[in-house]
Amino acid sequence: MNKMKSGRVVLLLLLCWNVANFAVIAAAPQTCPANLQGQCGESEEWKGEFFPGIPKIKYEGPNSKNHLAFKWYNAEEVILGKKMKDWMRFSVAFWHTFRGTGGDPFGGPTKFWPWEDGTNSVAMAKRRMRANFEFLNKIGVDYWCFHDRDIAPEGDTLKESNEYLDEVVALAKELQGSKIKPLWGTAQLFVQPRYMHGAATSSELGVYAYAAAQVKKAMDVTNYLGGENYVFWGGREGYQTLLNTDMERELNHLASFFHSAVAYKKKIGFNGTLLIEPKPQEPTKHQYDWDAATAANFLRKYGLLGEFKLNIECNHATLSGHSCHHELETARINGLLGNIDANTGDPQVGWDTDQFLTDISEATMVMLSVIRNGGIAPGGFNFDAKLRRESTDVEDIFIAHIVGMDTLARGLRSAAKLVEEGSLTELVRKRYESFDSEIGKKIEAGDADLEFLEKKALEWGEPKVPSAKQELAEMLFQSAL
Amino acid sequence: MNKMKSGRVVLLLLLCWNVANFAVIAAAPQTCPANLQGQCGESEEWKGEFFPGIPKIKYEGPNSKNHLAFKWYNAEEVILGKKMKDWMRFSVAFWHTFRGTGGDPFGGPTKFWPWEDGTNSVAMAKRRMRANFEFLNKIGVDYWCFHDRDIAPEGDTLKESNEYLDEVVALAKELQGSKIKPLWGTAQLFVQPRYMHGAATSSELGVYAYAAAQVKKAMDVTNYLGGENYVFWGGREGYQTLLNTDMERELNHLASFFHSAVAYKKKIGFNGTLLIEPKPQEPTKHQYDWDAATAANFLRKYGLLGEFKLNIECNHATLSGHSCHHELETARINGLLGNIDANTGDPQVGWDTDQFLTDISEATMVMLSVIRNGGIAPGGFNFDAKLRRESTDVEDIFIAHIVGMDTLARGLRSAAKLVEEGSLTELVRKRYESFDSEIGKKIEAGDADLEFLEKKALEWGEPKVPSAKQELAEMLFQSAL
Amino acid sequence: MNKMKSGRVVLLLLLCWNVANFAVIAAAPQTCPANLQGQCGESEEWKGEFFPGIPKIKYEGPNSKNHLAFKWYNAEEVILGKKMKDWMRFSVAFWHTFRGTGGDPFGGPTKFWPWEDGTNSVAMAKRRMRANFEFLNKIGVDYWCFHDRDIAPEGDTLKESNEYLDEVVALAKELQGSKIKPLWGTAQLFVQPRYMHGAATSSELGVYAYAAAQVKKAMDVTNYLGGENYVFWGGREGYQTLLNTDMERELNHLASFFHSAVAYKKKIGFNGTLLIEPKPQEPTKHQYDWDAATAANFLRKYGLLGEFKLNIECNHATLSGHSCHHELETARINGLLGNIDANTGDPQVGWDTDQFLTDISEATMVMLSVIRNGGIAPGGFNFDAKLRRESTDVEDIFIAHIVGMDTLARGLRSAAKLVEEGSLTELVRKRYESFDSEIGKKIEAGDADLEFLEKKALEWGEPKVPSAKQELAEMLFQSAL
Amino acid sequence: MNKMKSGRVVLLLLLCWNVANFAVIAAAPQTCPANLQGQCGESEEWKGEFFPGIPKIKYEGPNSKNHLAFKWYNAEEVILGKKMKDWMRFSVAFWHTFRGTGGDPFGGPTKFWPWEDGTNSVAMAKRRMRANFEFLNKIGVDYWCFHDRDIAPEGDTLKESNEYLDEVVALAKELQGSKIKPLWGTAQLFVQPRYMHGAATSSELGVYAYAAAQVKKAMDVTNYLGGENYVFWGGREGYQTLLNTDMERELNHLASFFHSAVAYKKKIGFNGTLLIEPKPQEPTKHQYDWDAATAANFLRKYGLLGEFKLNIECNHATLSGHSCHHELETARINGLLGNIDANTGDPQVGWDTDQFLTDISEATMVMLSVIRNGGIAPGGFNFDAKLRRESTDVEDIFIAHIVGMDTLARGLRSAAKLVEEGSLTELVRKRYESFDSEIGKKIEAGDADLEFLEKKALEWGEPKVPSAKQELAEMLFQSAL
Repeated sequence: MNKMKSGRVVLLLLLCWNVANFAVIAAAPQTCPANLQGQCGESEEWKGEFFPGIPKIKYEGPNSKNHLAFKWYNAEEVILGKKMKDWMRFSVAFWHTFRGTGGDPFGGPTKFWPWEDGTNSVAMAKRRMRANFEFLNKIGVDYWCFHDRDIAPEGDTLKESNEYLDEVVALAKELQGSKIKPLWGTAQLFVQPRYMHGAATSSELGVYAYAAAQVKKAMDVTNYLGGENYVFWGGREGYQTLLNTDMERELNHLASFFHSAVAYKKKIGFNGTLLIEPKPQEPTKHQYDWDAATAANFLRKYGLLGEFKLNIECNHATLSGHSCHHELETARINGLLGNIDANTGDPQVGWDTDQFLTDISEATMVMLSVIRNGGIAPGGFNFDAKLRRESTDVEDIFIAHIVGMDTLARGLRSAAKLVEEGSLTELVRKRYESFDSEIGKKIEAGDADLEFLEKKALEWGEPKVPSAKQELAEMLFQSAL
Repeated sequence: MNKMKSGRVVLLLLLCWNVANFAVIAAAPQTCPANLQGQCGESEEWKGEFFPGIPKIKYEGPNSKNHLAFKWYNAEEVILGKKMKDWMRFSVAFWHTFRGTGGDPFGGPTKFWPWEDGTNSVAMAKRRMRANFEFLNKIGVDYWCFHDRDIAPEGDTLKESNEYLDEVVALAKELQGSKIKPLWGTAQLFVQPRYMHGAATSSELGVYAYAAAQVKKAMDVTNYLGGENYVFWGGREGYQTLLNTDMERELNHLASFFHSAVAYKKKIGFNGTLLIEPKPQEPTKHQYDWDAATAANFLRKYGLLGEFKLNIECNHATLSGHSCHHELETARINGLLGNIDANTGDPQVGWDTDQFLTDISEATMVMLSVIRNGGIAPGGFNFDAKLRRESTDVEDIFIAHIVGMDTLARGLRSAAKLVEEGSLTELVRKRYESFDSEIGKKIEAGDADLEFLEKKALEWGEPKVPSAKQELAEMLFQSAL
Repeated sequence: MNKMKSGRVVLLLLLCWNVANFAVIAAAPQTCPANLQGQCGESEEWKGEFFPGIPKIKYEGPNSKNHLAFKWYNAEEVILGKKMKDWMRFSVAFWHTFRGTGGDPFGGPTKFWPWEDGTNSVAMAKRRMRANFEFLNKIGVDYWCFHDRDIAPEGDTLKESNEYLDEVVALAKELQGSKIKPLWGTAQLFVQPRYMHGAATSSELGVYAYAAAQVKKAMDVTNYLGGENYVFWGGREGYQTLLNTDMERELNHLASFFHSAVAYKKKIGFNGTLLIEPKPQEPTKHQYDWDAATAANFLRKYGLLGEFKLNIECNHATLSGHSCHHELETARINGLLGNIDANTGDPQVGWDTDQFLTDISEATMVMLSVIRNGGIAPGGFNFDAKLRRESTDVEDIFIAHIVGMDTLARGLRSAAKLVEEGSLTELVRKRYESFDSEIGKKIEAGDADLEFLEKKALEWGEPKVPSAKQELAEMLFQSAL
Repeated sequence: MNKMKSGRVVLLLLLCWNVANFAVIAAAPQTCPANLQGQCGESEEWKGEFFPGIPKIKYEGPNSKNHLAFKWYNAEEVILGKKMKDWMRFSVAFWHTFRGTGGDPFGGPTKFWPWEDGTNSVAMAKRRMRANFEFLNKIGVDYWCFHDRDIAPEGDTLKESNEYLDEVVALAKELQGSKIKPLWGTAQLFVQPRYMHGAATSSELGVYAYAAAQVKKAMDVTNYLGGENYVFWGGREGYQTLLNTDMERELNHLASFFHSAVAYKKKIGFNGTLLIEPKPQEPTKHQYDWDAATAANFLRKYGLLGEFKLNIECNHATLSGHSCHHELETARINGLLGNIDANTGDPQVGWDTDQFLTDISEATMVMLSVIRNGGIAPGGFNFDAKLRRESTDVEDIFIAHIVGMDTLARGLRSAAKLVEEGSLTELVRKRYESFDSEIGKKIEAGDADLEFLEKKALEWGEPKVPSAKQELAEMLFQSAL
């Protein structure tokens, strides 16, 4: 009963995918629709700048009132022995910044950027890529992230899609020059209806194969562009109800898929880090990579530990009931902190809002983890954040990235202050000093059995238990902001 | 900087609104796009049935294994003195059933119904309307609900939109015959980008006026079709952040808007009930009609009490932190229970999933409120519920409605059993019987002052406080399922 | 079957109420239990200071490293034309600070302050009151808040309880001197088992009367001490399940109760403001005063508007799904902002944690509302916040209050900066300026009917809708922190 | 500054631990407090029955109106080849049923059972143990669960505590006879203030040793009583804020602790299963055993897999954002499903309510997992559920357990019906049948590399993706209820 009437109808409907707030146009009319009467651009040409009137963004310091200047991010300034830009390794997310339409489940697109002609042609894709590089240059960011289907249209066949991708990627390579490269690339395996039951966890074998082919190509392309990482966000790897799902079989398939990707990576000599991006829910009721601990369990169970790290997104963290700081620390102590998707959610909202982080406390905690991790390279901070639907000026794209970068830079400054001042670190160290004793070492070495410990407990009597000094810790933390 | 490049580009983008999970095509190419090469239907003609092979759905009783039969809903059967169909007054939601595409924030459409040709033409709208009436007839439901923009395309101008609407409505009127009519109609004031800041609460005067015009027309049309109610769901009446919002001014505007609607209703002699549909969040961070109590406060504050009732949606109830039963009871005891949007959410999910209710406990509690309310007429149960994105067979539309209707019918049967058996009612009555005394009556009449009560308290000594018997109440409740 | 074995057993059990994290000892052995063998203090005497070694807390400015000094709160400094202390009107919550035991649902008390002797005698109550005033003096706060049963033990009879209360209150009056007074008093109507079904909403008449008597006495006492407000937090006014509850009857009783309280207030000439404190859940599944809008609806429905204001607690706000800022603004625009219970919750935690607020963004938003309200007097900021269970040093009491006061003071400074700088205010004003037109005024006056608006909409064509500039608003906000 | 004034004062305060809703009296006055004047029982004697008038509970079938009879649980009836009692292996939780006081964070105890004398003496402990066995006998349950400190008081020293425990355990052994035994035992490591920073994860070495000693003894005692499992619920193994916490070091300690427990188990020849009970939050902000996946990751990371299984609690599942069904399935497919703590929470409430499960849909899903697991032995269903605070009749203890047992029994009947009828199983099997092909097997064996899959994808073209039939699955599921 679900036979599609006509390939052409499908094509038209697919055109509409750019509506959704994440979605990316995946299939394209290569020619201009009739009702546009030839008004849509069939060339990638664009006269002059994409962002006329917007200069290269400079650091002007905290007292600047200029919306189009950095107040806290000073790329070359050295903090704790490293340049700010090397701590941050900022990246622009192509999908949000250049394919976000402002659509949401209750509304259509609100962004009508001047350079868009309403088509999803290869020509338009190339024009958009030029806009991307102008933006990167003006905002002063050296990394970008992309999905295959963000940057080039999906064709009628996989072969055609790959050809379109190659064409756009060739341009991107040229525009990158020697300075810019992808922080990571990925395959978009969730917008197209074929992926409605998942990609690697789809109940359909053909979909699994299709997804594998897409990953292969996306990894090739990422490698070609010099990408430093490759990400797996399992957009629809999960379930809507257990009643119709064989969860164990789906997870087994997912593991096979990842093993194949690891083998391919090695085969082609791609040196980037493979990253899994946990998310608890949305679009499915349960996403298999729920949180850092769940992803770690999966990697260990299926013998994949050592082959992957994690890409922690703050908004995903809070949706899973954890603070972002918790997820970063969980990843870190499992040796899995690979990259950060820098964004935030609304604390009272139960879905992914992907807002630019503007909270300085949160930013400081994030940077504490990064400092503790000795930096985040070869990962970085990707702005997986989008303009609010109601922010429709071109300059809003700049303002959003500036405040996002400034917030994390301010977080770095505060975190460095905390580290240098040392009181908070000392408070924590002191809490555990009883374990720095001989018996503490015995316990930590796994040499203290229950009988020994019981003997000590009987000997020592009631232990003294000091205050945890939480309010003092909070006072010390706040004093650095 | 936000100048739209060309009306035509906008048109094409607007075409894409049917992607989102609620969204409805609002602007239409009246002709077939070039790339479809004339394949799309320019006529409303459709050969034969829309749902061939699916018979009129009949009641076959609880032992039936037929997916396309009712097991619990027996329209003419009398329960507690009223026919089941008169208790339920079921209604089909045109938008979910005929305009739902399966799109979500991470994916494109998945429904490609055979009768759809990929356009949003008036011809297609009329063909779709015929499908609607075949469906109503086969499923055995006498009411339907619609937004203006669901049933007819938006034109280039308001005038054109109104003309399209009139054309489709004329057909609907004809197809309704004498038996079928709208449970309610409404204006869709949230998909089009002009409504991105709200409609009645938009910061833009022109948008307020546009919304008013749309409501006027939608009320005219609802009246013309014999609709029994008119609904206001404030799709974007709310805010994303208080930092850029004048909440007080926005609420004042909303009240003015409602006063104008009341006046117009009276002027045209529309006898239907005006209904406000509370929802706490989504798409905005805070929707002004958060829950039943919030809406009631608004109505009282602005002198609108008596002019409106509430349309309670179960999924909205749970998103606001209440049980559906709570919201129904709150509406009921405020004299505001007007209609029920019958659906459910996922208890672990923080957004509106609009699922068909299949939980029999929940259905029983819902029906207890309806029975206590003496029925729900002139309201009813509108299935504001949609097929899961992954349910793509035409028969799924029937299966979903059947299980939804059966669940509520089963709830009615269980609730009636509870009412007739009487133990639960008696348990509640007994809990409060100390207030049936003379002093209890004095308190309830507002005649007991603190001095009098203190005197009694001193005289009586420590009060006896019996068990609340919650587990017994739950046992009695479950025994009726 | 629920007969209590012996009054004496009950007494012993009641002694244990101080375990819970809110709870207050309500019934007391007046003599020292046998197993303490005369070690417990039967006199209120206490040698020397309660907080030896802790000086009067002074303002030392942001660069101070002294944990026992203010860095941001400078009581006499003038901000926006008013002294900081007059903006803040800080108050110490007697129950948390002097009766909090550190107990929680999974653990016993952790606070063993030196001045406590383990009894709930009147002598101990008086000694504790002296500690309170030493604390107020050292921390530099002029207001305190209390429940009747916090400050004096519950006796065997209501009469006895009232006598104990009088005795302790007489001492408090003396200790207050001319400078200190209660910000508010209240009756504690939730710890004692008689209140397990509620107080004013109990199913038992005798409990209703007992609660009325307690409120009468608590209001008398608050009036006698010069209290500026009187609070109703309906600790158990709510339900656990609707299955055994007559919600409408309970709400009617609650309204009668409030009417009696209003009458009594007028009769005794108490000039303080009556305050209702909303909370959504906990201890009950549904608390009747869910949030500000729900409380406002209740007041309007029962003709109580004008007699009450609201006491907004930030942690209660977030538990109800709103930001604290939202609840403050909702109260404000309903003319109901009366007092603020200054605390915060954990954004990932689903129960009331009553933490001291240390977040400077939140504090700034709170202070924006207070400034907009023209101050909060005769209300103030009551620290309805408690030490973490694990904070067990006496100095932690000071540290917690200092960081709480400093945070709000820092919030005031940032909010003032925003107000004085003006950009954010201007951004908001400009958003709505289309309504400052003639037609805007007509709408706001309620004089624009649907026909008129439709005419305008047709005339104007598609409205222009500018960007909401949310990211810019967030940038401006952050720049003031 | 935190010096405790006097051991005796502490003793008195500790007496009060029974207030909290979980808490168990941990330290006891061995003699009767002065103010009880010798009224408290110093002997374990109790005249006649503890539950006079309550007969042995019998199965009477679904039509019975007798509150004190089973309607669905028929212990000896065979379902799917096994007796109901062998599927269920019900257990009574000593702490909730015999030590629950009804206290909550806002209120004191409400339960005053006739056999309680208000003391925490050994004599009272023994009397209570007799009540437990009368209850087990009357309700027809063969297993019970306990914490060390539930069943015997804590003494002044660890040695004394152990002696008390031995004395009470000797009586329990005698009362058990040949039929009854513990489903599991455990050490209570969270009520006493020494555990405020955790037990195995405490920052204090002395506390770690004390906890180890308690576990050693509790395991000895469980073994002695023939317990079939031993549980670790890490009551305070977690953190309140990361600012003062060294999470990595704490987790390392926890692993050492578990390794020691495993070694001891083997040494003493205890054959029971060791179980970890996940819980996400409460009392701490983050509990280390957040959910099944987190616990599994921990076990794998620290080489403990194979030594532990999981005890899944439904209320903990939902607090962690998962359905109970999800947690059971996650445990099952990780080979870790060991036991079920049968209870439920309130879907709108953010804390552990530990209610008796009365929802038949939920019960059916739970039993589907158990059937799939081939049963739950040597685990079982422990009623980690408590009477509501307001349920204060002795008969309520029976009613609650009866409805809890009946609900799960009804779930078993419905699940068996689903399994026997087969349609739902078939629907799931069919969804994945494309993987039953040769290429599917190749994928599942890990032999399909990306190149091979790409080749197939190019060859096959666009895959067909059938409907997921969720509504049909829900219809089939409901039809079995």
